Amino acid sequence: MDVQGLVAQAREGRPRAVARLISLVEGASPQLREVMAALAPLTGGAYVVGLTGSPGVGKSTSTSALVTAYRKRGKRVGVLAVDPSSPFSGGALLGDRVRMSEHASDPGVYIRSMATRGHLGGLAWAAPQAIRVLDAADCEVIFVETVGVGQSEVEIAAQADTSVVLLAPGMGDGIQAAKAGILEIGDVYVVNKADREGADATARELNHMLGLGAPRAPGDWRPPIVKTVAARAEGVEEVVEALEKHRAWMEERGVLAERRLRRAALEVEHIAVTALRERIGDLSGDQHLDALAERIVAGALDPYAAADELIAGLTNRL
Amino acid sequence: MDVQGLVAQAREGRPRAVARLISLVEGASPQLREVMAALAPLTGGAYVVGLTGSPGVGKSTSTSALVTAYRKRGKRVGVLAVDPSSPFSGGALLGDRVRMSEHASDPGVYIRSMATRGHLGGLAWAAPQAIRVLDAADCEVIFVETVGVGQSEVEIAAQADTSVVLLAPGMGDGIQAAKAGILEIGDVYVVNKADREGADATARELNHMLGLGAPRAPGDWRPPIVKTVAARAEGVEEVVEALEKHRAWMEERGVLAERRLRRAALEVEHIAVTALRERIGDLSGDQHLDALAERIVAGALDPYAAADELIAGLTNRL
Repeated sequence: MDVQGLVAQAREGRPRAVARLISLVEGASPQLREVMAALAPLTGGAYVVGLTGSPGVGKSTSTSALVTAYRKRGKRVGVLAVDPSSPFSGGALLGDRVRMSEHASDPGVYIRSMATRGHLGGLAWAAPQAIRVLDAADCEVIFVETVGVGQSEVEIAAQADTSVVLLAPGMGDGIQAAKAGILEIGDVYVVNKADREGADATARELNHMLGLGAPRAPGDWRPPIVKTVAARAEGVEEVVEALEKHRAWMEERGVLAERRLRRAALEVEHIAVTALRERIGDLSGDQHLDALAERIVAGALDPYAAADELIAGLTNRL
Repeated sequence: MDVQGLVAQAREGRPRAVARLISLVEGASPQLREVMAALAPLTGGAYVVGLTGSPGVGKSTSTSALVTAYRKRGKRVGVLAVDPSSPFSGGALLGDRVRMSEHASDPGVYIRSMATRGHLGGLAWAAPQAIRVLDAADCEVIFVETVGVGQSEVEIAAQADTSVVLLAPGMGDGIQAAKAGILEIGDVYVVNKADREGADATARELNHMLGLGAPRAPGDWRPPIVKTVAARAEGVEEVVEALEKHRAWMEERGVLAERRLRRAALEVEHIAVTALRERIGDLSGDQHLDALAERIVAGALDPYAAADELIAGLTNRL
């Protein structure tokens, strides 16, 4: 099937076409550029929500409960579960039954797992392309679920319009989250498993660490802390309210457009640097780089002058 | 003072000139290129030994003892102590009295601390330039001491001709070292504090983890494990012997030349990629990148096509 045909089918809501397109962008296939070009005019409609937190806080359960809540509102929903420790391969068919069986038969929900293959850095930049596929496939809300323990996953979460940071009581999670650098990225905080002992203490600790008690300029966003028991859907409506409030605030203040511009710029820069690095790798293939290294070791050239020569050699290929 | 004058003074063994040159290459000063060009024909004579290990294994004591041993042999010695947690700033004068007071007044020893400033990645690539300064200043042996807990420090250690991995008994160090990825890089292993309980067990564990018991092809290097009590200089002569044996083996087999070529090639590639990245950053300054991001958000362009445009815009600047 050609790319245009796949995109047309994805628009009509055919899950296999969506799955095939995600595989094409995820695997950096030869058709990647054709797919991206075909998707571009169809994107920008989805509201992208990142969910992150340490293992065990109940991310999948929370995501599943949020999907249910948005489905009740009649929204088409996409889920991208990015988990380097996930046993599900990136090539799995859409509809990940083990993770979210209750939504598997719902045609209004797309679920996709992305596992680490090789470089996590690569995965972090495959995620936005997969989000574009779901966006073009008319998903109105897209949840991107990450483990939130590595820098790359924090980067993925930062690519969302709204970032939700999940914690659970009694796991020393505040400090863990602070270490992982995810405390700074939250627009909404959720203390899940709030029926457990220590939930209030965790919320207080979080409130303190975030300096939420301090006065803010009028109109600034004050990240709410919502307590949930996702397994029983308790508090999930409050999370949805917090998300919609944040989205409305971002739209009013121009923050949403700003965030999307910033993300697009970072993405282009990353793709360009990766492409340039690959071309430098190509040069080393034709032994230009080896020849430069020999002159450095012989003392005939310094590494900075060699880098200049390498870059000059690139102009013919740009 | 001009760069040529500084280099001439460094050749004569003036410590202040050496210190000034290291500051110039470390801080990426405007004269960096001039310094590197002036140093190139003077380098290649030094034998560079990397020392790495977790905090507390006695790296500084071991380095100090090795310096003493090489000084007894009449060799001029340089020490570059790379430590991101070090309280000594990179701008400290040569002769770091706190770390190695006994060598502070020896004109045949240069000691330099490099602390993290900002990016550790940057530091990793400032180290080889500082090594070049010490090399050009006629140091015959240069010790590069790193903490060996981060990837960047492992990279620094890998830039040496010979890598020494230090461990101490009773610290669960084998596993720590394996985690940090430093077990694979050792050409010589040292179990320091060998008067403590568990030294033999640590050596055995190491022997097992490295598969040193397994047969090797004749002529292959079999990393020795040396036990030392560096604080009393016990076993240090054996370490020197192991170093010299490794150096002779590398020279015989052409491994030394190979390693230096490989290192030079990686260094050039890194400098070139960094330079290209900076130029892309410059482009964003003149709002080309912002304009591309706007077209992406509007759905008029995809990020890969935008990256192509960005790279095309670079040709004028290369």
